Amino acid sequence: MTEPSAPARPHAFLPPRATVREVGLRDGLQSIARTLPTAHKREWIRAAHAAGQREIEVGSFVPARLLPQLADTAELLAFAKTLPGLFASVLVPNLKGAERAIEGEADLLVVPLSASHAHSLANLRKTPDEVVAEVGRIRAARDAAGSRTLIEGGVGTAFGCTLQGPVAPEEVLRLMQALLDAGADRVSLADTVGYADPAMVRRLFERARAIAGERLWCGHFHDTRGLGLANVYAALEVGIARFDACLAGIGGCPHAPGASGNVDTEDLLFMLQSMGVATGVDLRQLLALRGRVAQWLDGETLQGTLWRAGFPKTFAQEEVAA
Amino acid sequence: MTEPSAPARPHAFLPPRATVREVGLRDGLQSIARTLPTAHKREWIRAAHAAGQREIEVGSFVPARLLPQLADTAELLAFAKTLPGLFASVLVPNLKGAERAIEGEADLLVVPLSASHAHSLANLRKTPDEVVAEVGRIRAARDAAGSRTLIEGGVGTAFGCTLQGPVAPEEVLRLMQALLDAGADRVSLADTVGYADPAMVRRLFERARAIAGERLWCGHFHDTRGLGLANVYAALEVGIARFDACLAGIGGCPHAPGASGNVDTEDLLFMLQSMGVATGVDLRQLLALRGRVAQWLDGETLQGTLWRAGFPKTFAQEEVAA
Repeated sequence: MTEPSAPARPHAFLPPRATVREVGLRDGLQSIARTLPTAHKREWIRAAHAAGQREIEVGSFVPARLLPQLADTAELLAFAKTLPGLFASVLVPNLKGAERAIEGEADLLVVPLSASHAHSLANLRKTPDEVVAEVGRIRAARDAAGSRTLIEGGVGTAFGCTLQGPVAPEEVLRLMQALLDAGADRVSLADTVGYADPAMVRRLFERARAIAGERLWCGHFHDTRGLGLANVYAALEVGIARFDACLAGIGGCPHAPGASGNVDTEDLLFMLQSMGVATGVDLRQLLALRGRVAQWLDGETLQGTLWRAGFPKTFAQEEVAA
Repeated sequence: MTEPSAPARPHAFLPPRATVREVGLRDGLQSIARTLPTAHKREWIRAAHAAGQREIEVGSFVPARLLPQLADTAELLAFAKTLPGLFASVLVPNLKGAERAIEGEADLLVVPLSASHAHSLANLRKTPDEVVAEVGRIRAARDAAGSRTLIEGGVGTAFGCTLQGPVAPEEVLRLMQALLDAGADRVSLADTVGYADPAMVRRLFERARAIAGERLWCGHFHDTRGLGLANVYAALEVGIARFDACLAGIGGCPHAPGASGNVDTEDLLFMLQSMGVATGVDLRQLLALRGRVAQWLDGETLQGTLWRAGFPKTFAQEEVAA
């Protein structure tokens, strides 16, 4: 403990508002064996939008034989485009998927890159630099089509890898710069396997921000070892203001029963609103949606604490414009 | 997101080492209906000490009819005193309990005070200022006995209360100062009901440190709404380096099935060690103990993620002197 006479450190900087990008329909549902009916997914998107969520990753343009759970992504994207003010994104592994995203007029497409060479080869069957080259081709295709779809390069396994172990921050930052050079409009950092701690997050995001500025778009954390929200708080303190999350914390790893997945959307929104960071989301409405999603996914492992504990008496629900 | 040209904020201050005070035998077990046999509690204390834990709250000197689960506190205190270097504390609600702690040569006794008047009257049947007066009597008794038992005043419901709602920070700090004036050697702040967020923690602990300096001894957080570790991280950043926690996160509220209790010891130690904050604890040994405690408490709701997820490949186990 420091002496009281030590110079006071400045108060944490917290952004006045932050965005939670809902990725439950993609990162969540792709990790669950069952396929949620398209009607339920549409209802999820509709209700999330009604509750105030304005950024939703609706699915992934991968071959249906690989992820049958996400085979209806084109239909969901078309539906999302009908909702006013909704910024709809999709994940694409390659140029072919990107062409479908551009054709469907996605607001943004996310190209995942794994900074771990071992993980990249195992999951994407490409080296990280081959993914960078693919982003260059996607950018050329986007520009040739006169499309306004933004391109995000998502640098995964940015804090370590279950296959390879350590991933050097220098390599993460080199690949982030390479993505920008290849034409990515946005970049993000993901703790794909739940290895990050708040000190690592602070260090790497500070360096990444110095490189990418406002093009550093999003933080993606998993709660595998209980540090998801602590990691978000550490990133907030260095000015990051957009985070991926899954309603009810769905996702996790199909090979590790009970393992936590992405940060839980409603718990993250609670933390933000409790601290006075505006989110634009009506949390009570969103909890009602969580209840419906939990019914649809009956039997799956769900996460989250707010739905069970309820709001503190001291909690002031954020006022959200209707 | 700030511009890259914005002046860099300083890196988080993290203390080089931190202490996790094990309170599972008191705050944890008092919330569980069953009584753990004394032999198991002794084994818990012995193994926690062997794993490197050096501060353990072994029980509470309250009437056995109120908390039969803790009726063996005197015996456990005597046992703890036989373990080299172990700093053994007990909780006491009043002078009578303090006299037993002094008689048993506890290294420290914790007197809980609730900053919420409503909570104080409901749980302690005293106003907060009556508790302050009792601490004055405890200090006089301690000094009269020539005892070296330290007195800690623990200010609970410091972030709000389930009965009364808001608790003014000014009232929390006034009571903290009053405890020091009455003779407390140490003070601590507790989020008794899980209402705190990291921004609140940072603000209140910074102000409290300015008042109490090194006598601000400990942070006590519950994980009721998933923010336990984020709150610890926020407190670490303002120089707090001692935290209460329960092995396997036992505790919670007997009236809210499934509700989380104290911050989980092993997850907290993992966060600290991962960030390079030394703890002195062999985490693998402690996980083995967790397994035994989980067997003893079979059927109770336990918390924690590390025991299930395992260590990251990148995790360097802290080297602990044998």
